[in-house]
Amino acid sequence: MVNVKAAATAKQADIPNAAEALAALAYDDMRRVDALILERLDSHVDLIPELARYLIEAGGKRVRPMITVAAANMIGHSDIAPLKLAAAVEFIHTATLLHDDVVDESGMRRGKVAANLVWGNASSVLVGDFLFARSFSLMVEAGSMRALGVLSAAASTIAEGEVRQLSSVKDIGVSVDTYMQIIDAKTAALFAAAAQVSGIVAGRSADEEAALETYGRELGLAFQLVDDALDYGGASAKLGKSTGDDFREGKVTLPVALAIAASSGKETDFWTRVIAGGEQVDGDFDQAVRLIKAHGALDATVNQARAHARRAREALAVFPANKWRNALEDLADFVVERAY
Amino acid sequence: MVNVKAAATAKQADIPNAAEALAALAYDDMRRVDALILERLDSHVDLIPELARYLIEAGGKRVRPMITVAAANMIGHSDIAPLKLAAAVEFIHTATLLHDDVVDESGMRRGKVAANLVWGNASSVLVGDFLFARSFSLMVEAGSMRALGVLSAAASTIAEGEVRQLSSVKDIGVSVDTYMQIIDAKTAALFAAAAQVSGIVAGRSADEEAALETYGRELGLAFQLVDDALDYGGASAKLGKSTGDDFREGKVTLPVALAIAASSGKETDFWTRVIAGGEQVDGDFDQAVRLIKAHGALDATVNQARAHARRAREALAVFPANKWRNALEDLADFVVERAY
Repeated sequence: MVNVKAAATAKQADIPNAAEALAALAYDDMRRVDALILERLDSHVDLIPELARYLIEAGGKRVRPMITVAAANMIGHSDIAPLKLAAAVEFIHTATLLHDDVVDESGMRRGKVAANLVWGNASSVLVGDFLFARSFSLMVEAGSMRALGVLSAAASTIAEGEVRQLSSVKDIGVSVDTYMQIIDAKTAALFAAAAQVSGIVAGRSADEEAALETYGRELGLAFQLVDDALDYGGASAKLGKSTGDDFREGKVTLPVALAIAASSGKETDFWTRVIAGGEQVDGDFDQAVRLIKAHGALDATVNQARAHARRAREALAVFPANKWRNALEDLADFVVERAY
Repeated sequence: MVNVKAAATAKQADIPNAAEALAALAYDDMRRVDALILERLDSHVDLIPELARYLIEAGGKRVRPMITVAAANMIGHSDIAPLKLAAAVEFIHTATLLHDDVVDESGMRRGKVAANLVWGNASSVLVGDFLFARSFSLMVEAGSMRALGVLSAAASTIAEGEVRQLSSVKDIGVSVDTYMQIIDAKTAALFAAAAQVSGIVAGRSADEEAALETYGRELGLAFQLVDDALDYGGASAKLGKSTGDDFREGKVTLPVALAIAASSGKETDFWTRVIAGGEQVDGDFDQAVRLIKAHGALDATVNQARAHARRAREALAVFPANKWRNALEDLADFVVERAY
């Protein structure tokens, strides 16, 4: 087991925040994407922009639309279409977050009280639907039927992943394979589509399109693996996401699945009680973190993430090197290093 | 005030169930639409087809997709595109119903226990999202970017209408205008789009497209007005919808808005208590029905519906007469007469 903490500190010195570096590079385009987002979430029904802005202006890093924008720049395609698709991608993501809050009964989102607790579940469901519908209007404006096909397929895949995750809550038998399929659907599919659509509207070859898709998918897998590690990693303040959410909801993410697989006797009884039985008392989360760490399950999760980030990087090798490709490559490293 | 009951009995003898007549005419096409629906709601995640089928196989009259199919036939356009759009329209509608059940906390839907009470709110939200996404995949297959634009705009308008309705719950100051705007958005927009897209994929003139749009919109308004009258009309068994839902949820539909506008003194106090205050006791619903009838608000609502149905009929006059046009015209009458 590597000393991840020490390695991370060393690594952090070398890698400035690559997400911020990419954001700086994409600044002008992302301002245009933001303008599109604000324009298209407008409605004569005041509650809609009010609620949507609450979430959208809370920020998040806009990672997904930035991928669309950066990929378009990397392949030299400067046009309005990728910006519209980027805004559409952010709308799909935001709609998903609004609905997730209802599904998960989350308390916090992007460091703020979740919208459903402020405006109620009904509003979150309906404003999510509105954003989802508007995302398709934006895609129509972008004018590519193939991009529309890819993004609508991603949207149904996300819903499938969420349903599957829901069905596997409190199931201590969730395998690593099942977990990977779930995060591939609920998270990586949209990252993949976000990258691929830039290649589509730029009219690139099937190979280049596939390379973009792979970049997005592998990055998305790395991103979710790290997110799931952070839920047990105590670095929540950085994310604005409270630690222990997955645990409390009985979600069997990779750290838990690995710890369960390595358990026996009293440890198995513990997981059975807190996850399958949903009976949690004070101190259980700390105990879960101890068991996860004892079995190296956190390191194993981050190492998995690192392997996917590497594949994301490698996928970009088919493109000529330029500052955009470098920034996207660095983003893959950053996604993993933020685990620390 | 006309004796609506007697008029209805006379009318019913003349008009066989026009929805069934249209369904018989459109039988072959609707079987193909049903096949598309079943095919596209399939998923490797078992819960999705299971939950979606529960609602879709409960039936309903498939009025919206039937409009798309019948309009296409009326203008002589036999092609797969309108069938795919018809399936997409039904998916949007079904997604809306699933989300409405969560929003309204309904108990019954299409004569069955609402899906959210069987599988939980989370599943209803996510399966709704899945159907919504798949509806766009179907539209992509239909191949018309303009039809996609019209249907995605309708989808965001529906969400706006639902949010607006939600905001006006328990508001005894809802005006007739506001009510009409709400039902125009939450119901008529999809009927309008369902009709219009047939004209689009058939490449018809702007005038003919507008005529189809008007037919759908006016029919949708008539449909919703009658639905809202039925909620106080005691004919719920026919619809599989329990009477009094709107009342219990504090929705100010036209019958109530008119009764409130005509009220004073103790009647106003009654409405203030049961709608604005949400304090309802046994006998309040019966009292509401009595007041609504005493002010002729039910007749006025049905008369409004009749006026819109007439406009729907008239809109079709630009098309050559044929059995499909006749069936669509009769459907407009039927939508009103089912009030009895």
